[in-house]
Amino acid sequence: MAQHPKVIGAMVDVAARMGTGAGGTRNIAGTNHPLVELERELADLHGKPAALLFTSGYVSNQTGIPTIAKLLPNCLILSDALNHNSMIEGVRQAGCDKQVWRHNDLAHLEELLKAADPARPKLIIFESLYSMDGDIAPIHAICDLADKYNAMTYVDEVHAVGMYGPRGGGVSEREGAAARIDVIEGTLAKAFGCLGGYITGSAELIDAVRSYAPGFIFTTALPPAICAAATAAIRHLKASQWERDRHQDRAARVKAVLNAAGLPVMPSSTHIVPVLIGDAEKCKMASDMLLADHGIYIQPINYPTVPRGEERLRITPSPYHDDVLIDQLAEALVEVWERLQLPKRRQQMAAE
Amino acid sequence: MAQHPKVIGAMVDVAARMGTGAGGTRNIAGTNHPLVELERELADLHGKPAALLFTSGYVSNQTGIPTIAKLLPNCLILSDALNHNSMIEGVRQAGCDKQVWRHNDLAHLEELLKAADPARPKLIIFESLYSMDGDIAPIHAICDLADKYNAMTYVDEVHAVGMYGPRGGGVSEREGAAARIDVIEGTLAKAFGCLGGYITGSAELIDAVRSYAPGFIFTTALPPAICAAATAAIRHLKASQWERDRHQDRAARVKAVLNAAGLPVMPSSTHIVPVLIGDAEKCKMASDMLLADHGIYIQPINYPTVPRGEERLRITPSPYHDDVLIDQLAEALVEVWERLQLPKRRQQMAAE
Repeated sequence: MAQHPKVIGAMVDVAARMGTGAGGTRNIAGTNHPLVELERELADLHGKPAALLFTSGYVSNQTGIPTIAKLLPNCLILSDALNHNSMIEGVRQAGCDKQVWRHNDLAHLEELLKAADPARPKLIIFESLYSMDGDIAPIHAICDLADKYNAMTYVDEVHAVGMYGPRGGGVSEREGAAARIDVIEGTLAKAFGCLGGYITGSAELIDAVRSYAPGFIFTTALPPAICAAATAAIRHLKASQWERDRHQDRAARVKAVLNAAGLPVMPSSTHIVPVLIGDAEKCKMASDMLLADHGIYIQPINYPTVPRGEERLRITPSPYHDDVLIDQLAEALVEVWERLQLPKRRQQMAAE
Repeated sequence: MAQHPKVIGAMVDVAARMGTGAGGTRNIAGTNHPLVELERELADLHGKPAALLFTSGYVSNQTGIPTIAKLLPNCLILSDALNHNSMIEGVRQAGCDKQVWRHNDLAHLEELLKAADPARPKLIIFESLYSMDGDIAPIHAICDLADKYNAMTYVDEVHAVGMYGPRGGGVSEREGAAARIDVIEGTLAKAFGCLGGYITGSAELIDAVRSYAPGFIFTTALPPAICAAATAAIRHLKASQWERDRHQDRAARVKAVLNAAGLPVMPSSTHIVPVLIGDAEKCKMASDMLLADHGIYIQPINYPTVPRGEERLRITPSPYHDDVLIDQLAEALVEVWERLQLPKRRQQMAAE
């Protein structure tokens, strides 16, 4: 098509340099080849016809949710009580009616669905894996309710993509539920080690979001190098199971060793290992002591990230933590627990 | 401080790999050394005590403006009519009263300021350089009004940082007005060729936004490599005037050549060269013809980026466009103008 490639190169330069930005907005000059390739890779990852890339996972929820909700006349959003702030902001910006169902409580969700006008469009939004407790949503059961009450489903797989499912498609892939979900949202900034976020779904839905989401239209596209890096990471984790197996193995070992040491590990079926402290000041002190006296960096998780009284250390072992490191971690935690006179595991938790 | 660097390294790995993300959230594990260095560089660029980095310029406005407004009890926002969508979204999310002043109309701004309760906190938000028309705000005069009516000022320098001011501090630096403005916002995704956005201001204000902005707290930090690249670009443009001089020289030549060819160049005092078409379909056709038949890529700017009837080609020459390329551009535009029977320059515009 291009007759004067040199001139094109120079004029693309206009956009790529001092003009419309390093990348430009997607609808002006920002849609580059590696970005299109990345979107194809993401659509394939979740078995969906189309995908749309955003500057972050936060932005994908914050602008994706209200855009979808506004396209459904008089939409009712049903939101899990522990949904991430980016989803809460998205719901708030949708400006439509919303109802919050108790976390992972199917009976409560059904009660709310049943009470709503059957003809009314409904959107159920939830996470597949909740990052602060490490628990998992009953995806198939939620989809059963969505089918029964004619609701759309939107799942945040941010803490699962790359890490769960035979190709890293998340918990929905692992459970064979991806095809039942209307919108699967994810991030490139966790398992894929990059940055950016996305949604996947039907071609019509993705086109609608592309055309109406202000947080997509008026922002700069991710640069080609970032997109290419993300595509490489996704392709690697589609083919390699080693990281996922080792990741789970390491998480299991951390849980076993900390439990054996009598530490109050909060129950979790995933790679996330929360250890309860229940006091903001002591949580911060424990983190400081671990760093200063043991050379171990674990962040205190305090309000507003978790409710007051549920302050914790959250440990997320990687595939590269060996047995020696995990044993050192347990010893360090025990020492800190004694110094701060923190409570050990309760009897009923020990009996689990 | 670190006694076991190997263990630290491994545990930071937790955050850096499959745990809390490639970077982690800023308040958990995402604050890395290159990021802190970048924030210092940005604060210095605008002569402010502090800076805060966001994932994009869009996000910095969208979450920065409402966070600041909510910290001011009963705040009244006064917003220029042509402010960018990210600022409009920020104002909307603030949820407080807002008044829109006619674009760059100081009399209208004063009228609104005068009518408001003198004791009421006020926030004037505007851009230094408006990207679709290429015109500039009367920054000192706006600051005079802010002083007179005790209002805070927030300026978006997205289209000016790196490109204006002796060190690339934007139009506010060029006019010696930076110290009079409370918050200067900018991007790393245009002149600095990278990605990310930021605000700069007093240490107290930056700390408040850091502590209260959901779009900052709950998102992943920019990775170290991106931050280091941005810092390098800012440092280069602080010291090198060549790009800025050449940029202005090239823009002036494009305007002169297109004006001489009778094309309807819209008046602009900056590097942005809009050429009016005034019809969405013909605007798209002109862009397609330029690419297919002349090998030149210039994007059509249609609604909603500009109002209907003001559709245009927007040309933003870079320092690397030589005279030959500019002459080819003029010839191509003339050919397309004739083929589409587009109006040439009106007489009164020619007389300017």
